[in-house]
Amino acid sequence: MDAKSKKILAAFKKAGARIETRSRVKLKTKEDLALFYTPGVGVASTYLAEHPEKARELSVKRNSVAVVSDGSAVLGLGNIGPYGALPVMEGKALIFREMAGVDAWPLVLDTHDPDEIVRTVLAVAPNFGGINLEDIKAPECFDIERRLIEALDIPVMHDDQHGTAIVALAGLINAAKVVKKNMKKLRVVISGAGAAGTAVAKLLVVSGVTDVVVLDRGGAIFDGRPDLNHHKQELAVRTNPRKASGSLKEVLAAADVFIGVSGPNLLTREDIRTMNTGAIVFALSNPVPEILPDEAKAGGAAVTATGRSDFANQINNALVFPGIFRGALDKGVRAITEETKVRAAKALAALVPAPTAGKLLPDIFDKRVVPTVAKAVR
Amino acid sequence: MDAKSKKILAAFKKAGARIETRSRVKLKTKEDLALFYTPGVGVASTYLAEHPEKARELSVKRNSVAVVSDGSAVLGLGNIGPYGALPVMEGKALIFREMAGVDAWPLVLDTHDPDEIVRTVLAVAPNFGGINLEDIKAPECFDIERRLIEALDIPVMHDDQHGTAIVALAGLINAAKVVKKNMKKLRVVISGAGAAGTAVAKLLVVSGVTDVVVLDRGGAIFDGRPDLNHHKQELAVRTNPRKASGSLKEVLAAADVFIGVSGPNLLTREDIRTMNTGAIVFALSNPVPEILPDEAKAGGAAVTATGRSDFANQINNALVFPGIFRGALDKGVRAITEETKVRAAKALAALVPAPTAGKLLPDIFDKRVVPTVAKAVR
Repeated sequence: MDAKSKKILAAFKKAGARIETRSRVKLKTKEDLALFYTPGVGVASTYLAEHPEKARELSVKRNSVAVVSDGSAVLGLGNIGPYGALPVMEGKALIFREMAGVDAWPLVLDTHDPDEIVRTVLAVAPNFGGINLEDIKAPECFDIERRLIEALDIPVMHDDQHGTAIVALAGLINAAKVVKKNMKKLRVVISGAGAAGTAVAKLLVVSGVTDVVVLDRGGAIFDGRPDLNHHKQELAVRTNPRKASGSLKEVLAAADVFIGVSGPNLLTREDIRTMNTGAIVFALSNPVPEILPDEAKAGGAAVTATGRSDFANQINNALVFPGIFRGALDKGVRAITEETKVRAAKALAALVPAPTAGKLLPDIFDKRVVPTVAKAVR
Repeated sequence: MDAKSKKILAAFKKAGARIETRSRVKLKTKEDLALFYTPGVGVASTYLAEHPEKARELSVKRNSVAVVSDGSAVLGLGNIGPYGALPVMEGKALIFREMAGVDAWPLVLDTHDPDEIVRTVLAVAPNFGGINLEDIKAPECFDIERRLIEALDIPVMHDDQHGTAIVALAGLINAAKVVKKNMKKLRVVISGAGAAGTAVAKLLVVSGVTDVVVLDRGGAIFDGRPDLNHHKQELAVRTNPRKASGSLKEVLAAADVFIGVSGPNLLTREDIRTMNTGAIVFALSNPVPEILPDEAKAGGAAVTATGRSDFANQINNALVFPGIFRGALDKGVRAITEETKVRAAKALAALVPAPTAGKLLPDIFDKRVVPTVAKAVR
C-alpha cells in the first residue's frame, strides 16, 4: 500500500464510521421516557397499525433512504462483495446527510441472487422513504430495479444508472456550449454498456442526441450483432443508427464526445487525437478514469471531466442523487420518470449559465444544487 | 382517541422521527470529499474487500445494531404488523443512542415467515455490529434467534426474552431482600409462556429458584400436559416440580411472586389477597399491566413493579439491552451466555445495595447502569 493510501486508511480508522445516529427528541426525564418510549410509544404503534400510510409523518420513514448494494459492481473495482461495498454506501449516506439532510443508512447485502435482493429490499422497505440502489452489476440491476419499482410505494432509483445519466447529460449540455456545437448533432461514443452506460445512452437519446454508439467488451453494440443479451439488444435498437462496429479505438475516430463509464486507463492521447476538433472527454470511471485529464488535453481534448473530487469538472452522481431523493421525499413522489431526469439535467446545467472548459457544472458544495434538482422532481 | 393519546400523537408528529443520522467527519471542502468520498473511499473499499473483518474498525459496523422485528408480538398489542412495530423499534434505537451511544436503526420486516426473517437478517448483517431481535412472537422467535446465533459472527439477542429475563431477575433479587425472603425458596408464578415468560422462567431456574410455575392460555404448564408444543414441553420439564395445574387464579394462591408478561388487566386485588404475605407483584405487560400497582397494593402486595416509566419501580428492558450491546460491541463478544445474563442481573441489582419497596432498581437515567451491565459481558 502506498503512502497516500495509508494516510486515507488512517483517516477512515480515526473516524471509525463516517455517520452515526442522533436523537431528535429530548430524553432527560421520566416524563420524556413515558412520552417517547413506554407507554407513549404504544399510542403511536396502535395508530400506525391502523393507519400505516401515516408512517411517513411520525417515524424515520419520513426522511430515510436505504443505500442498497450487493457489492457486485463497486466503483470501477468490480465485484468486491458486501464489505468492499460498505465504505461506498456509507459514503453515500454521508453525502445524503450533509448535502440534503436525508437520513440514509447503508444496506450492503450478503447475496448476489436477484430474487433474494428483491425479497430483502421488499422486507425492509417499511423503514425507509426511498431506496437508492447502488453498485449492482448489469444486467441484473435492470430487473431488480424494475421489480422493486413495481412492488413498492416509495421511490426506487438505481443511482449508477440514473444519477450518472442525469449528471452526464447536464455536463454534456454545457460542454456542447463550450465547444459551440449543437448537442443533438454530436457524435457520442460511450465506453461501457453496464448500468451507467446503458442509462446514459438512453437518456441522451431521449434528449434528442441521435448518434450514440455504446461499446461493451465485444466492441460497438449495433442492431444485428449476434451475441447481445436482451438488454443490449434493446440498446442496439435505440442507439447507433449508423450501425458502427469495431473496437473503441476504431469508433472513437471522428467522434465529438467520449463518455467513459467502464474502467481505468483505456485510452491514450493518440486515441483522443483521432476525435473531431473540440473533443469532449468525460472519463467517469472511479476511482481511476479511462484517461487522465492532462493526457486527454495532450491529445487535443477541448473539455475534460472525471468523476473525482480532485480534478476540475467533477461529473459525479453526488450532484444528483441527494436532490432527487430530497424532492421525492418532500413531495411524496414515487416515480423518477424520463421527463424528471431531463428536467433535472437541464436545471443543473442552467446553474452555470456561461460554462467554460474549466467550469462545466456547479460545485458539489454549491447550496443551489440540491434544491434545484429537488425542484425538478414532480 | 382520548385527549392524552392525542397529545402523545401530536408530540410524535412534531418530532417527525425520533432519530436521524449525523456526520462524524468534516465535509466542507473538495479535499474532504476526495478523502471521505471519491477517490478516497476506493482505498477503504479495496482494503475491506481483502480484509472484511476490519469492517468493525472503519465502518458503521463498529458501533451499529439493527433493531429487527416482524411486528408479530408488539408490546401487549399483539400482531400489529411492521408499521405498528416501527415506533417501538425506533424508540429502542433512540434508547440505544441516548443511553449507550450505540448507532441503532429500526428494521421492521414486512414478513412473518421465519425462513424469510432469517434470510433477511443474514443478508443485511454485514452493516451491523449486533442484532437486537424484538417483538417477534413465540414460538417462532426461539428458532429464529437460535439460527441467527449459529450463522452470524456478531451478537444476536432477542430482547423480549433475555433483556426481560435479566431485568426481572435483577428486580427479584432486590424484591426478595425487601420482603426478607430467601430468593431460591420463592414460589414464583409467571403469567405468559411467550418469549418473555419462557426466558424469565429459564433464567430464574438457572439462578437457583426451583418453584417456578409458568402459565399460558391453557393454564399452568406441567410435564404431562397433553397439548404442549416442544418449546413448552421443554419448559414443563425445567419448571414446576410440584406439577401444579389449573388457572392463573388457582396457582396464584400461596405464591410469593407474580410475574406478568402476558396482557392487560388479568388480576384484581382479590387475586393478590390469595398470595402469601409479603407478595411481590411484577406486572410487566406494556403499555397496560396485568394489574395496576395501586390495585395490587390494595390486595396486600408488599412490592409492586411495572414496565412503565410513569410508575415507581420500572422493570424495563431499557435497563439492560443498551449495556449488553455496549459491552458486546466494545469487547467483540458474540455470545450472550446464561452466565453473562445472571452476572448482569446481579450487577444491576447491586447498584441499589439497600432496596426498598419504593426503589428496587436503579433509574434508567442512572449513568452507572450501562457501564455496569456492559462490564458483565465477557
